[in-house]
Amino acid sequence: MTVIDPQELLSCPVPISQHGSVTMAHGGGGRIMHQLIEGEFLTFFSNPTIETRHDGAVLDIAGARIAFTTDSYVVHPLFFPGGDIGTLAVNGTINDLAMCGARPLFLSVGFVLEEGLPLEMLDRVVRSLQQTAQTAGVQIVTGDTKVVDRGKGDGIFVNTAGIGVVEHRLTIGPSSVLSGDAVLLSGDIGRHGIAIMAAREGLEFESTIESDCAPLSEPAIALVEAGIEVHCLRDLTRGGLASALAEIAESARVHISIDETSIAVEPDVQAACEILGFDPLYVANEGRFICIVSAADVDRSLEVLRRFGVTECASLIGQIDDEPAGAVTMTTKIGAHRIVDMLSGEQLPRIC
Amino acid sequence: MTVIDPQELLSCPVPISQHGSVTMAHGGGGRIMHQLIEGEFLTFFSNPTIETRHDGAVLDIAGARIAFTTDSYVVHPLFFPGGDIGTLAVNGTINDLAMCGARPLFLSVGFVLEEGLPLEMLDRVVRSLQQTAQTAGVQIVTGDTKVVDRGKGDGIFVNTAGIGVVEHRLTIGPSSVLSGDAVLLSGDIGRHGIAIMAAREGLEFESTIESDCAPLSEPAIALVEAGIEVHCLRDLTRGGLASALAEIAESARVHISIDETSIAVEPDVQAACEILGFDPLYVANEGRFICIVSAADVDRSLEVLRRFGVTECASLIGQIDDEPAGAVTMTTKIGAHRIVDMLSGEQLPRIC
Repeated sequence: MTVIDPQELLSCPVPISQHGSVTMAHGGGGRIMHQLIEGEFLTFFSNPTIETRHDGAVLDIAGARIAFTTDSYVVHPLFFPGGDIGTLAVNGTINDLAMCGARPLFLSVGFVLEEGLPLEMLDRVVRSLQQTAQTAGVQIVTGDTKVVDRGKGDGIFVNTAGIGVVEHRLTIGPSSVLSGDAVLLSGDIGRHGIAIMAAREGLEFESTIESDCAPLSEPAIALVEAGIEVHCLRDLTRGGLASALAEIAESARVHISIDETSIAVEPDVQAACEILGFDPLYVANEGRFICIVSAADVDRSLEVLRRFGVTECASLIGQIDDEPAGAVTMTTKIGAHRIVDMLSGEQLPRIC
Repeated sequence: MTVIDPQELLSCPVPISQHGSVTMAHGGGGRIMHQLIEGEFLTFFSNPTIETRHDGAVLDIAGARIAFTTDSYVVHPLFFPGGDIGTLAVNGTINDLAMCGARPLFLSVGFVLEEGLPLEMLDRVVRSLQQTAQTAGVQIVTGDTKVVDRGKGDGIFVNTAGIGVVEHRLTIGPSSVLSGDAVLLSGDIGRHGIAIMAAREGLEFESTIESDCAPLSEPAIALVEAGIEVHCLRDLTRGGLASALAEIAESARVHISIDETSIAVEPDVQAACEILGFDPLYVANEGRFICIVSAADVDRSLEVLRRFGVTECASLIGQIDDEPAGAVTMTTKIGAHRIVDMLSGEQLPRIC
């Protein structure tokens, strides 16, 4: 079966950042955001740490191995089935640390509040931040508050930065991915994006679709502690499973092939995607990740993951080989093959 | 001479945060922001680290002593004489680490961009972030970008979080301030706030007033390395010198008395303050700090500070005693005494 040459897709020119203006797609988690990161941020903030292109930085400080990460949250609406901007801001940053195989310890919280925001709403978010942090065993230790004029913000934006301790000597990231490795997916996909979309647009489905927002540090650390040589971990936020895989394939210069039949999508999420015209592969998750390990470690990895509620439906979805380097391909349910590229524009803005 | 009982000023009731709505004053650095922090954030995010009420958190991680801090920047306009949102975001967070006596090492950068922002403007800010970081010897190692719809943001908001290493065993913060200590000020005050105000309102003075935005880590670390028992360091951002002193007096339950004649204000800044009706004591700075040390260490501290350009005009401005606990008083140029309270509303919104 012929596969389209992925180089054609990958070689589209990087826009010169001095021209044009910011579009929603620059924050969408797909190709345009990737080009902004590569063409602008990685060009100027050039150093070996940031060039690992991973969710967090792993740093050696005074003999300690520390993971450090940050995310801003601009989700709209602030409250949605299964969570709110507070649960998202804590779990999202915990998950970036977890994807370094780090044990999350401390968070900072920075608020940008819009003048006129009801204090009751801020109070709900603060309580949610605290409860989520407490559940995950992390402490919020420092913070900052700014207020912008009415109409210059949108209620509450939250930034969290996180520090974790790295208790292993693995290099977890795209650079460790090898031909022959296996790709595991921690559970069903698409729930967060559809939950936000339904809340935003006032859509009602037969059952309420809840966000999968959850901390992933316990299963991620358990994999490392079980002695599994974890090669790469990546949570599936903006841009979904497809964009995460495409980024890894591109960074690691490998080919990733996945099998659609092994990727779980809940029937109500699938139905909502069909109605809304979304492909669940591109829909954001906030409690799902992929784990790339040696083929020999697949069974043991799945056994570890299935011990935890949040990863009990983990499955093997694909493997890594050499060619075509930089591409992700999928065998569909009907046996066809397709290229899985990064999200090319933006699908669901302000999902996190 | 009679001094007004500061308890009267300090005992105004903390508003119940569930009522009312966010005002610009909640981000102004004065009393209202202080009440939000005490009544909401410190109530829910309660732990020994955050309760030190210092600019950054000092953490023990795997045997290393690490300082951690965050600030969001919403300054308007983005570019102003003496700096821009990029210089501010790097130096501001470096300075919070410096106020822990820490050596700044690593920064994260989180952008919230408004749809429609010219990419050329983002590029200028990114270059500025990188140049300022490089000058100060810190690395930007991780980041995040979000985009919000047109009219839901204001060009660029930047969050930086920072990590530094603490190479001393001092506890630098309000809890270490003692009766008998001396208060040193690192230079003239009021330049940043006036520079922003002039840029925002298109005001022209005889000479262009430039922001004092600068990294303070070198002189702060030099004080510690000289063996001086530094009790407290605090940079004089939102709310200015007055609010910083009032916060320390309140946290440490001491009385701080200062002498107006020893506080330097450049003539053009003084003139601008008079025209605009501002008190320079309350105007924000981005390259100035106070340093509280034992009276015995004053000469040596000033000698250390005067070695660095940014602190060459350091001076002794006051001292600490016991009563009236929680208050700051000032002997004015004409010999009168006045209470120096926190900024009660907001003076210059979106100064940083």
